[in-house]
Amino acid sequence: MLLQLRKNLSEADFRSLADLARELGYRVVALDGVPDLVRLEGPGAPEHRSRIEDCYAVARVLDAGAARELFQRAPGAPDTVVTVGEARFGGGAVSLIAGPCAIETYDATLAIAREVRARGATLLRGGAYKPRTSPYSFQGSRRAGLEILGRVRAETGLAVVTEALDPRDVEAVGEVADMFQVGSRNMANQPLLAELGRQRKPVLLKRGFAATLREFLLAAEFVLAGGNTQVVLCERGIRGFDPSTRNVLDVGAVAWLKRTTHLPVIVDPSHAAGRADLVPALGRAGLAAGADGVMCEVHPEPGETHSDGSQAIGLEDFSKLVADARALAALDGRTLVAPTRPAPHTV
Amino acid sequence: MLLQLRKNLSEADFRSLADLARELGYRVVALDGVPDLVRLEGPGAPEHRSRIEDCYAVARVLDAGAARELFQRAPGAPDTVVTVGEARFGGGAVSLIAGPCAIETYDATLAIAREVRARGATLLRGGAYKPRTSPYSFQGSRRAGLEILGRVRAETGLAVVTEALDPRDVEAVGEVADMFQVGSRNMANQPLLAELGRQRKPVLLKRGFAATLREFLLAAEFVLAGGNTQVVLCERGIRGFDPSTRNVLDVGAVAWLKRTTHLPVIVDPSHAAGRADLVPALGRAGLAAGADGVMCEVHPEPGETHSDGSQAIGLEDFSKLVADARALAALDGRTLVAPTRPAPHTV
Amino acid sequence: MLLQLRKNLSEADFRSLADLARELGYRVVALDGVPDLVRLEGPGAPEHRSRIEDCYAVARVLDAGAARELFQRAPGAPDTVVTVGEARFGGGAVSLIAGPCAIETYDATLAIAREVRARGATLLRGGAYKPRTSPYSFQGSRRAGLEILGRVRAETGLAVVTEALDPRDVEAVGEVADMFQVGSRNMANQPLLAELGRQRKPVLLKRGFAATLREFLLAAEFVLAGGNTQVVLCERGIRGFDPSTRNVLDVGAVAWLKRTTHLPVIVDPSHAAGRADLVPALGRAGLAAGADGVMCEVHPEPGETHSDGSQAIGLEDFSKLVADARALAALDGRTLVAPTRPAPHTV
Amino acid sequence: MLLQLRKNLSEADFRSLADLARELGYRVVALDGVPDLVRLEGPGAPEHRSRIEDCYAVARVLDAGAARELFQRAPGAPDTVVTVGEARFGGGAVSLIAGPCAIETYDATLAIAREVRARGATLLRGGAYKPRTSPYSFQGSRRAGLEILGRVRAETGLAVVTEALDPRDVEAVGEVADMFQVGSRNMANQPLLAELGRQRKPVLLKRGFAATLREFLLAAEFVLAGGNTQVVLCERGIRGFDPSTRNVLDVGAVAWLKRTTHLPVIVDPSHAAGRADLVPALGRAGLAAGADGVMCEVHPEPGETHSDGSQAIGLEDFSKLVADARALAALDGRTLVAPTRPAPHTV
Repeated sequence: MLLQLRKNLSEADFRSLADLARELGYRVVALDGVPDLVRLEGPGAPEHRSRIEDCYAVARVLDAGAARELFQRAPGAPDTVVTVGEARFGGGAVSLIAGPCAIETYDATLAIAREVRARGATLLRGGAYKPRTSPYSFQGSRRAGLEILGRVRAETGLAVVTEALDPRDVEAVGEVADMFQVGSRNMANQPLLAELGRQRKPVLLKRGFAATLREFLLAAEFVLAGGNTQVVLCERGIRGFDPSTRNVLDVGAVAWLKRTTHLPVIVDPSHAAGRADLVPALGRAGLAAGADGVMCEVHPEPGETHSDGSQAIGLEDFSKLVADARALAALDGRTLVAPTRPAPHTV
Repeated sequence: MLLQLRKNLSEADFRSLADLARELGYRVVALDGVPDLVRLEGPGAPEHRSRIEDCYAVARVLDAGAARELFQRAPGAPDTVVTVGEARFGGGAVSLIAGPCAIETYDATLAIAREVRARGATLLRGGAYKPRTSPYSFQGSRRAGLEILGRVRAETGLAVVTEALDPRDVEAVGEVADMFQVGSRNMANQPLLAELGRQRKPVLLKRGFAATLREFLLAAEFVLAGGNTQVVLCERGIRGFDPSTRNVLDVGAVAWLKRTTHLPVIVDPSHAAGRADLVPALGRAGLAAGADGVMCEVHPEPGETHSDGSQAIGLEDFSKLVADARALAALDGRTLVAPTRPAPHTV
Repeated sequence: MLLQLRKNLSEADFRSLADLARELGYRVVALDGVPDLVRLEGPGAPEHRSRIEDCYAVARVLDAGAARELFQRAPGAPDTVVTVGEARFGGGAVSLIAGPCAIETYDATLAIAREVRARGATLLRGGAYKPRTSPYSFQGSRRAGLEILGRVRAETGLAVVTEALDPRDVEAVGEVADMFQVGSRNMANQPLLAELGRQRKPVLLKRGFAATLREFLLAAEFVLAGGNTQVVLCERGIRGFDPSTRNVLDVGAVAWLKRTTHLPVIVDPSHAAGRADLVPALGRAGLAAGADGVMCEVHPEPGETHSDGSQAIGLEDFSKLVADARALAALDGRTLVAPTRPAPHTV
Repeated sequence: MLLQLRKNLSEADFRSLADLARELGYRVVALDGVPDLVRLEGPGAPEHRSRIEDCYAVARVLDAGAARELFQRAPGAPDTVVTVGEARFGGGAVSLIAGPCAIETYDATLAIAREVRARGATLLRGGAYKPRTSPYSFQGSRRAGLEILGRVRAETGLAVVTEALDPRDVEAVGEVADMFQVGSRNMANQPLLAELGRQRKPVLLKRGFAATLREFLLAAEFVLAGGNTQVVLCERGIRGFDPSTRNVLDVGAVAWLKRTTHLPVIVDPSHAAGRADLVPALGRAGLAAGADGVMCEVHPEPGETHSDGSQAIGLEDFSKLVADARALAALDGRTLVAPTRPAPHTV
């Protein structure tokens, strides 16, 4: 590890750093003629960089060397492939997640699940617990919504991803969900991340709308460090200064993440755009930048929904997106995963 | 309420809005020659704006009229004054909160508590549960830290504010703390806010580092709507694009909030600056913009601390900040609240 | 036009607005029961919205109605197609612009021009006048660079786009360039835009790195209002908060602009990414979002260049980008324009 | 100078760097065991850092050492004091600049100049050339406005600061102005900065609304490098994501700049707030953070002005700001400069 030290460091501060480094098994090497730099020679372990970085004496880690966090892609290492029901993310596999914003009724959820599966989705999304900006907004159908998701899952054979907001709800959500979703507002909710690190089901982690990429990856590290290795990252737009779109889909982040981590990366163009007419273009852009999948809100009649109706696309637009995703995946030798098993109710 | 509707609205979507409006007690009035606008005449209640705004048909609430949320200052209404031990925020009272970033040992915490109280602080800050970016960073002394805070509180007579990260910890934190802190990363953590809304102790709510002011106020509304009326807002810097300071202290937000809400507003220059040498200047700037208090990290020997040592100011700088705060408060007829009761151990 | 007025407006302020509106040919209609709104009935002309918006009395233009600026796409109107030599932007035509960052020597420029033309570029880029952050950085080869561009243009038959920084240089640049480039730093340089509005050659206008889309379009309007109708807009990344990429390529802006204006829109992934390894992914993302072209920096030996060497891609990566662009254009029925005329020197 | 090199550097790229370094008089020293770092030992000159930084081989300058740009404050060096008529900025002197946004008529300008001078302003501001977002907005009274400014200057004895937008107008503006203003949109307009570097009159340089502090200081360096040493920096708000205020006044930047550069720093709360009611609070905050002055728009009847009327404060608010500025300056031993010479027309 190569460290830049703070200027005008006291003897005591430097000693704290040196003591910790030795405790972790490193040899501390001064650099001739450059008093502000120090090199640590030693083993490297996922937790070392953060622990060294936290020392007051350290202004910046210039090179982490072998102290590689769990999320990092070792040189030449393959993608982690995350499988959820029929869906598969990473390693050349591209999958589509679709469904309503919020779960409302059994009939509506079933209808949309059948439609999106028939058109090419391999994973059903739908919120039972909804994070909202106002205490007076619809907070989701909660337990009733989970129950609906469970029945639709049984009926259609589609695996389900849904959000957990509260560490106390993780168990209940886990009884139904095939994949836990962590929303943008909760990316830094550590008790929740720690709870999900103890689960053995995949986690879909959305980037906070103003999180740096290192903060995003360290949020994933909370889950990985708990022993849960199945994390899919989701870029869903960062906060910008222009009101034309709700957020700015950061396709550069997608491309950068694919090089930096072995974890799969998908995009959510619905929350990025905030308006249905731009969703297909943003979904395509995310795939073209290298994303391993797209999650989007689909609704047969967008006006009749309790939340975020304006950003849900219709069924025809979804069919077009499926076709585009297939072509885009093929562009660099990847494959769009199609639903293959017959739906249970047709047997 | 005056509403701008979405363009090309379907009959059904408009009917959903009209039905909800009538259910809430409003009369729906069309505006002659302007099909995209509609006026709602009726009673107004804190929850109405959000519920109407959530309708798909509504593009924008142009004027909320009498539907005023609990956080809003009615025309001419006085400040809410929040009292915590000797400290008082709002209504012309300015108070200073000081202490270490994280609670480490009893002796160190006691020493600093005595020092800051003697110099003019009326509330002790210190983290037992620490929100961190990395799972490998020091996560706080937790229960042991709470216990230390309790002992120092008893010994010095200083009231204590400390952070709760997890709704499951609120009870334990509440046994020691005189005021709950919600950190920037948790501003939108609704289960936590809801739990604090059920408490009857003051809450110090920090602005998310990329939250709009309306989002910030609606986070406060989660607490207020639960029946807890004692909320102090804290501006602690928003994320910017320049690496010179860690965050950008938004003094315009302070001035705007003081006009918009009756709740007290303070600033945290330590997290805004991220470096001790700029903290006094930012504390003064916050007060000059109208803040009802300053919270800052103080440490007798900044280098010997586990977290955020670089932003803690020394004791002499704190004394100077107290003097400046007194002068700045006086500038517009306000008063810096001084510790008046003798410390228990001196009796 | 539908206007929201400022609250507590004086009689005199309202009269100023009403007088201007009448002078422009509008009838001012009050809205029953809504004192803060006013409707203007009348003809509509490109300059009316800005002039009305500038009145102190106007808080916001809610609907511009028929007062449509020149950049706006009328409902159902086709794309403006901008042709520069062999290149064509808009109306289903996609073209690639490539070349070195800065013009250095004749031999190097000629070599790269031949290579990129052979691989599919139809327009040569290269800076003679370079906008730089520091006064001590290489400011470009200036007149000598223009002369080189002129010779390479004659030799290869490739049309040339190059930047003008100073209104006093427009004439000299125009003697060589087939298209003027306005850089991001100069998007709001009005004397320069006004000068280009008087030219009759196409203008490539880059978005300021923190410009809203309306500000971007109004910068184009400065050129259009001067009578020069040939403007191509270029999204080149906005300033973000994460250091991983230099800027954030705003693909949502591309999609939104294509709906809002009839002008062609291209992307510059080189300046967005700031690092060569991400350029192809961002170029593909821009095209997938609907861009009518890509401009990128190409250099046979990236290390041997005076400016921005780190973001120039090599020739093989460029060939791959050409192939991808062809496939992406085909995805929605568009065509990548290929160089068709034989190069002059081969005749 | 201490340099971090790019990874996987070619022999040729490294040689380019080494050759330039030697040419500038440096000895290149490798660091034992750290191939990515290199130390340059040598003289240091203002232009060296930028020239070395531009080499492809250099990933980052870790320490500029003695290669200090002209704007940098050498350790222990005093403030540069800039004097403009009666106004004085820096070295403990605080001055107020006031006046209308745009120059309209002689009578109105004279009236306001007399009022603000009588209340404590020592420098008159007022735009003759106005940078605007739309080509259809009022672009200023131009030559006629300059002439009015000249007459008011002669009549009142107040020195004048006004904006130059175009390098071709610098001479005409310089015939009237005591100080040139460079607006936020033109901070990176290099031909303009270079022209002002050739003048021998003070320059008021406003920060671009999304410029980093290093970019801001390097813009000043363009003027300083031309031989004009009289530059005053002006923080006027950066672009944020919240619509409540037009911009975010970056008081941390003020505090940081005062430590980093010897040049005076002032704030412009009018453009930061974008609304008159917040201007006094932001002006106070800027001074409390260490600013050497405040520039604000004042208008006796805010509604009757062509541009930015909503952000101009009235005369009584200005008087209060003068009193506050006096008290705030005194807080740390500084002095508000008062108009002392009798106005010429009273002689």
